[in-house]
Amino acid sequence: MTTNTVVNGVDVDQLVETVGAIQAEPEIANFRFRAHNEWINGGHSKTTIQSFYGAGQEDESRNEPIVLESDEPPVLLGEGKGANAVESVLHALASCLSVGFAYNAGAKGTQVDGMEMDLEGDLDLHGFLGLSEDTRPGYDNIRVTCKVSTDASEDQLAELSDHVQKTSPVLDLLRNPVPTSVHLEKMA
Amino acid sequence: MTTNTVVNGVDVDQLVETVGAIQAEPEIANFRFRAHNEWINGGHSKTTIQSFYGAGQEDESRNEPIVLESDEPPVLLGEGKGANAVESVLHALASCLSVGFAYNAGAKGTQVDGMEMDLEGDLDLHGFLGLSEDTRPGYDNIRVTCKVSTDASEDQLAELSDHVQKTSPVLDLLRNPVPTSVHLEKMA
Repeated sequence: MTTNTVVNGVDVDQLVETVGAIQAEPEIANFRFRAHNEWINGGHSKTTIQSFYGAGQEDESRNEPIVLESDEPPVLLGEGKGANAVESVLHALASCLSVGFAYNAGAKGTQVDGMEMDLEGDLDLHGFLGLSEDTRPGYDNIRVTCKVSTDASEDQLAELSDHVQKTSPVLDLLRNPVPTSVHLEKMA
Repeated sequence: MTTNTVVNGVDVDQLVETVGAIQAEPEIANFRFRAHNEWINGGHSKTTIQSFYGAGQEDESRNEPIVLESDEPPVLLGEGKGANAVESVLHALASCLSVGFAYNAGAKGTQVDGMEMDLEGDLDLHGFLGLSEDTRPGYDNIRVTCKVSTDASEDQLAELSDHVQKTSPVLDLLRNPVPTSVHLEKMA
């Protein structure tokens, strides 16, 4: 009987196995994530997330869909029934960096006792409202401050931060362009 | 006594007023959105979203924070307690396009009776796992199919789609780079 090594809640033995499996069979690293959204009214919509493809098969771990609601606050003509789209982007970035730090620290045997992040992004509404062609609709910039409680040295933390920033999926999506197609059709 | 014009649940008179107010005083279009994230364990973290700055003041419409949980599925070493970070990106994009279509159709007096979206994104885990410098960590591409139930003509819909794609904050964030800084420090 053996016990797996778990650091930061991350099963490091399983992580090493996953890496080994991908090195032996690179195509199992190809994942396809999905979401379905239904508009409710005004700024209010509901996203359901359940299936995805990865590790060579359709994932079946979720018995129920995950439901996320989105809405604009009243000042942006909504009813405040959820975070709005650009706030959800900050959530996505935060959760991505959080996983990145916890997993990569775990892989190095560095224990994290706690971690908190504050994020902010500046956005000029002239873009979304179509009032200026010179103003981008999205964030001009995003700033993240991450505080980690750990015994790791400053040097180890700096190295970890570099690695996480190089390998974070959502940070990459923000810092670099993603080809994104939008196809609109009339409902039958 | 007057009654506001509401199309697609969007108060079009308020929208016109907002546009007028911004044209008179451009700096009220400067918004700053925020999020706070606390790591729980492994891939599991919790984001709280409440305050933001916009329209010249701190918003006070939310009495309680909005809480969003994120986790990885078991195949990615998590416990499946929420959508993961890259799935949250699809949610952000869906909700952004949904608002964009509903508001811009409303502004043109085009009634939307229903709207649904399916999104998918392809991601190669070699990047996140640090197994290849040539593989980007984020999505290689994202595809959105949006079905709209409306009496608008195909031409009107195509024009609407062009406008929404030009002005969508999250689509812009994905298609174009956003300067994003990450500062890591040890917790006191």
